[in-house]
Amino acid sequence: MSDDARPRPVTRADVARYAGVSTAVVSYVLNDGPKAVAPLTKERVLDAVRVLGYRPNLAARALSKGQADMLGLLVNDNRNPFFAELCHALDQASADRSKQLLIVNSDRMQVTTSEQIRDLVSRQVSGLIIASVLTAGEQALVETLNIPTVMIGQFGDTDGLAGVGVDFAAGARMGVEHLIEHGYTDIAFIGSAARHDGRERGWREALGAAQLTPGALVHTTFSYEGGYDVGQQLARGDALPRAVLAASDQIATGLLTALRQGGVRVPEDVAIVGFDGTTAVDYVWPRITTVVQPREQMAETAIRALLEPDTVPRYVEFATQLRVRESCGCSVTD
Amino acid sequence: MSDDARPRPVTRADVARYAGVSTAVVSYVLNDGPKAVAPLTKERVLDAVRVLGYRPNLAARALSKGQADMLGLLVNDNRNPFFAELCHALDQASADRSKQLLIVNSDRMQVTTSEQIRDLVSRQVSGLIIASVLTAGEQALVETLNIPTVMIGQFGDTDGLAGVGVDFAAGARMGVEHLIEHGYTDIAFIGSAARHDGRERGWREALGAAQLTPGALVHTTFSYEGGYDVGQQLARGDALPRAVLAASDQIATGLLTALRQGGVRVPEDVAIVGFDGTTAVDYVWPRITTVVQPREQMAETAIRALLEPDTVPRYVEFATQLRVRESCGCSVTD
Repeated sequence: MSDDARPRPVTRADVARYAGVSTAVVSYVLNDGPKAVAPLTKERVLDAVRVLGYRPNLAARALSKGQADMLGLLVNDNRNPFFAELCHALDQASADRSKQLLIVNSDRMQVTTSEQIRDLVSRQVSGLIIASVLTAGEQALVETLNIPTVMIGQFGDTDGLAGVGVDFAAGARMGVEHLIEHGYTDIAFIGSAARHDGRERGWREALGAAQLTPGALVHTTFSYEGGYDVGQQLARGDALPRAVLAASDQIATGLLTALRQGGVRVPEDVAIVGFDGTTAVDYVWPRITTVVQPREQMAETAIRALLEPDTVPRYVEFATQLRVRESCGCSVTD
Repeated sequence: MSDDARPRPVTRADVARYAGVSTAVVSYVLNDGPKAVAPLTKERVLDAVRVLGYRPNLAARALSKGQADMLGLLVNDNRNPFFAELCHALDQASADRSKQLLIVNSDRMQVTTSEQIRDLVSRQVSGLIIASVLTAGEQALVETLNIPTVMIGQFGDTDGLAGVGVDFAAGARMGVEHLIEHGYTDIAFIGSAARHDGRERGWREALGAAQLTPGALVHTTFSYEGGYDVGQQLARGDALPRAVLAASDQIATGLLTALRQGGVRVPEDVAIVGFDGTTAVDYVWPRITTVVQPREQMAETAIRALLEPDTVPRYVEFATQLRVRESCGCSVTD
């Protein structure tokens, strides 16, 4: 069928004529107000909408209303349990402020992150939350867009843009200090090779403060597989560390599974502390002791930084907490 | 500041004047085309955009271009690993077709699902994917919107709307039959009380076909906690079933953890088969044997049902597969 043969779009006036009401009444029904419509009339309008195949041009409506009550979130990979929980906390914090949240993944191969940021903004979001590490160019683009933006869960201060994060180095020190209190002296670190990740530094600092020699330093990917691969190598080798700080709960979980599968006991042979504080590591056995990022507080603060920027410092850094379970060697009763 | 005192919005013409270029050139820079702009000129335009605080009205642009290349996804809770993986697969399948995907959670307390569906549609999405169980009223609303819609992962045929799902009853039968092959006769089912969930029926059918009496039937929530609570009760009681089919991997994981914590061995005392085929249950120990929903195929088909509806039946039901690991009692080497 040629373009010319295409039937013209059904309009609100068509719906009004079919239903025998004014176009204003059609609007009241489709917008849930501002005036009430009698149930039978409403039924007649909805029937006309269905019969005629009318599709209200809601983008035009969003435009006429100006800014819509919607925030946009760019997240690297929604499958990572920490980011899944952070997304969910941001969704709740948005709802608390009567804002919707649109979530977009940034890890797809076919589309650049810049295009995804542009697309999100083109949806008339009134603010942008970035839970994905940006390149300098991407960050410059965001600054150009002149839209309130907050970076969340980055490796540190996000100069130029508002940010909410945790002190990764202090969190890592806390985890290592707990392992030292257990009497372990051979403490390895498994994390990513990211240069700005403070966790590796915190591990080193805590060992230095206790005058211990750093144990093995292993770089891997931030995933279950990343931890699993390292665990398989350790289980096969003859140089098991006595304890490990893993830079994420996913790494810790993969590590635990590979060690158990290889006949290594946790915590009797190797003690493990994870990082993130996800729910999932409370549902493996032994449950994993982990450095908790306060995601509800981070989410609430990020949303506030967007909506009431004057009440929030440009960069907010939260402290972490240790959630003690069995993987470090503690006995827990609950 | 009163409304009248608010400065008027900066326009594209202002940017052009400041940068000393035509408004067309400003458009080329902001739209990445259609004509190329010399790097220095581009720099000057971006500088003007920054200095003046210009924010292109991208919603107007989306409107003038007509339908934007964006699909909307409504999901019940993005933290559930199965839905997180399904979201991710849908995101990839959308990207394969050069479509963006906007994700919205539907489990928030403050906003009704209907409002969230309306909001998604008002973002000019060209299609809607629903991965959340709707009420009859919500489904009627969706039908009224006259936007291509596909339901994914529902309990069965989604009459009236296009749908993609799996045969839950056949999947459950497959899981139970595997447990029966191991020689277990006392096989319990742990699942939700949802009336339309075919998994409970499949469990019953498989036992009936093998002339076995149904074991315990326990209803709980679809969550780690739901499985954990049941596991704690079982571990404390004196009537352990020999084997369990859990209706989701999250339930299976919570169950496994509570049993291990309570000193019950898996699979030696209680064998477990889960349902979903999430990545996470390959990273607990013992790894959980599970009935796999083919999420990549489901996602690909759902996107095709939206974009090329004539090539896809109105309802597509996929078969499940069993992924055999150690929790059922099998020995696996990999």
